[in-house]
Amino acid sequence: MQFAGSAAYRRAMRTRATDMFGIDLPIFAFSHCRDVVAAVSRAGGMGVLGALYFTPEELETELAWIDDHVDGKPYGVDVVMPASYEGADFAPEELVGRLQAMIPEGHRTFVENLLAAHGVPPLSQDADAGRVLLGWTDATARPQVEVALRHPIALLANALGPPPADVVDLAHAHGVKVAALASTPRHALKQVEVGVDLVVAQGTEAGGHTGEISTMVLIPQVVDAVDVPVLAAGGIGNGRQMAAGMALGAEGVWTGSLWLTVEEADTPEMAKRRILEATSRDTVRSRSWTGKPARLLKNEWTDAWEAQESPGTLPMPMQFMLVSDALRRIGRSDAAELATFPAGQIIGITNQVRSTKDVIYSLIEEYAQALDRLAHLTDD
Amino acid sequence: MQFAGSAAYRRAMRTRATDMFGIDLPIFAFSHCRDVVAAVSRAGGMGVLGALYFTPEELETELAWIDDHVDGKPYGVDVVMPASYEGADFAPEELVGRLQAMIPEGHRTFVENLLAAHGVPPLSQDADAGRVLLGWTDATARPQVEVALRHPIALLANALGPPPADVVDLAHAHGVKVAALASTPRHALKQVEVGVDLVVAQGTEAGGHTGEISTMVLIPQVVDAVDVPVLAAGGIGNGRQMAAGMALGAEGVWTGSLWLTVEEADTPEMAKRRILEATSRDTVRSRSWTGKPARLLKNEWTDAWEAQESPGTLPMPMQFMLVSDALRRIGRSDAAELATFPAGQIIGITNQVRSTKDVIYSLIEEYAQALDRLAHLTDD
Repeated sequence: MQFAGSAAYRRAMRTRATDMFGIDLPIFAFSHCRDVVAAVSRAGGMGVLGALYFTPEELETELAWIDDHVDGKPYGVDVVMPASYEGADFAPEELVGRLQAMIPEGHRTFVENLLAAHGVPPLSQDADAGRVLLGWTDATARPQVEVALRHPIALLANALGPPPADVVDLAHAHGVKVAALASTPRHALKQVEVGVDLVVAQGTEAGGHTGEISTMVLIPQVVDAVDVPVLAAGGIGNGRQMAAGMALGAEGVWTGSLWLTVEEADTPEMAKRRILEATSRDTVRSRSWTGKPARLLKNEWTDAWEAQESPGTLPMPMQFMLVSDALRRIGRSDAAELATFPAGQIIGITNQVRSTKDVIYSLIEEYAQALDRLAHLTDD
Repeated sequence: MQFAGSAAYRRAMRTRATDMFGIDLPIFAFSHCRDVVAAVSRAGGMGVLGALYFTPEELETELAWIDDHVDGKPYGVDVVMPASYEGADFAPEELVGRLQAMIPEGHRTFVENLLAAHGVPPLSQDADAGRVLLGWTDATARPQVEVALRHPIALLANALGPPPADVVDLAHAHGVKVAALASTPRHALKQVEVGVDLVVAQGTEAGGHTGEISTMVLIPQVVDAVDVPVLAAGGIGNGRQMAAGMALGAEGVWTGSLWLTVEEADTPEMAKRRILEATSRDTVRSRSWTGKPARLLKNEWTDAWEAQESPGTLPMPMQFMLVSDALRRIGRSDAAELATFPAGQIIGITNQVRSTKDVIYSLIEEYAQALDRLAHLTDD
């Protein structure tokens, strides 16, 4: 197939979301991999780098690289500033210590026993204290925002509820638009109240933190509730799904799991293989990653936290602090059966490795085909 | 709004599903209420009567009424012949007795205590033994099929997996098409193997028995897996959702919860009021109704079965046998907080009582508007 020269791809698609950023395609792509972010933006969409796993210094390096490789096209950064979490009122310098002290010994034993049962060895060095909290809190995400705003980003997105109002104002002062992920119409209204420019309405089928309402049911309700443009997230993996999202009233789509298996992605080999093989039933909404419900690859890790002998999960951010070291150890071991990570239900339709550009082109090509088909169904 | 004379409504919509039945609109409507079934078929769609709650004699009465009120338009009947359930190898005359004996006393006590705690009185007469099993089994559904095939039905649908091959053959011998509900692509393939003419691919957001995969993710996979026409079910409550379902590749939509609150529906007043007030977060996928996961209105009934002190649910059909009497008692009491029933997530968008005809017209009107909007997004 010749995507690059197709009429579909040459056709302009204009919505308030494309106009907001001057982009050709209303396709937003979340990825932790700078290569994917730059490739999506170069192809006419909007790449958005997930900052969570990076220290401020690392984030600086990643964004500098993107600046050099994005050909001047707009891109964004996604941070996690949860509206509520344990320790939100602790002083930043005390945060890790006080939270660590709140993790019950029984929970630590449960994790150690689980790893031992699967033969996962300890790491040869101590856990990297700088990675215990990541960007899961206001205190740890703000330095990421400061780094991001020193770069020519076009969009700052918050992955867990409305961003703090002062962060929205700060972004706007830098000429940066702000988006936030919403799982209910009420979330979306709160986000618009603090000034977000774009709502990402995300259905339960999405990877990572999700609500309960499906994309099909959620999007029209959010579109009707707010005046700003809405992007459809959750379940968008091909052009028919993109057309469905737009039919529901969205002005663009927000994609994530789709990019885990592209050529450019630095997803660990073991994870890539499991995603390519997985069906749409191989995910589960679980608190076992962060303490808030997130859709993950279902496996012996997620099962263990549901089992009779599970001590139950801890609130955010303690659950992640409890398990971050374990997840790193699992990642470096052969215990593939325990290697869990955020993944949406569309992993059931990603079954080959393609380039980012090819994925974008085929999204648009199939989108155009879906529209042509619909037009013919109602022909006189 | 003038729907009746709208250009949208006059435009023909043709798919293999409309051609199969010679209907004007690819809208299939499941309802336990004969008035709704007849009204949908008269409006150009396909009404499908849920037979589950009727004895064979009652079903005969309902279908005779529909025959008199459907103006010769095609309609269908939906039965429940689960592919697997406890007691499938028991002789029909022993079925109820042997299953009753398998219900643990602790479960009966749990139900009685729950009702007592909410002040639900016993019924003045003994439970109607004929209603303990309903049409939940092969043995109890077959007499319903026999009744249905004595009427000029156009469609026989099975709500839980592939219907038995001999039932498919019997329907075909009567010139009746057969549909089955599928929650995974694998289900759909099995159904086509036994000869179904139409697959209803149903996402997790649907009311009643559902799988885990969302409509957005499921439909394209089922469409790609089978050669027969696919209807999109789950989350279809307005014209944008209908357009989305068709964009995903479906050749029609299958709706259910949408009809619980129409003027013609005989839904109990208490249930109607709760549905009109509910948000899309007020449903839950629970085994507490039948033993298989079904999406229900979330309330103190569904919560009780998830609570620490719950004895856990029993396998189909014993769970329904355990609770059917309780549900009838609740229905006749003031304990609205316990009154649960199948409901999909779209109950969050049904907030007014309208006539069946108006709902059909506005589906089509909004469908046409959604398509017009999509066409303009890609204008040069």
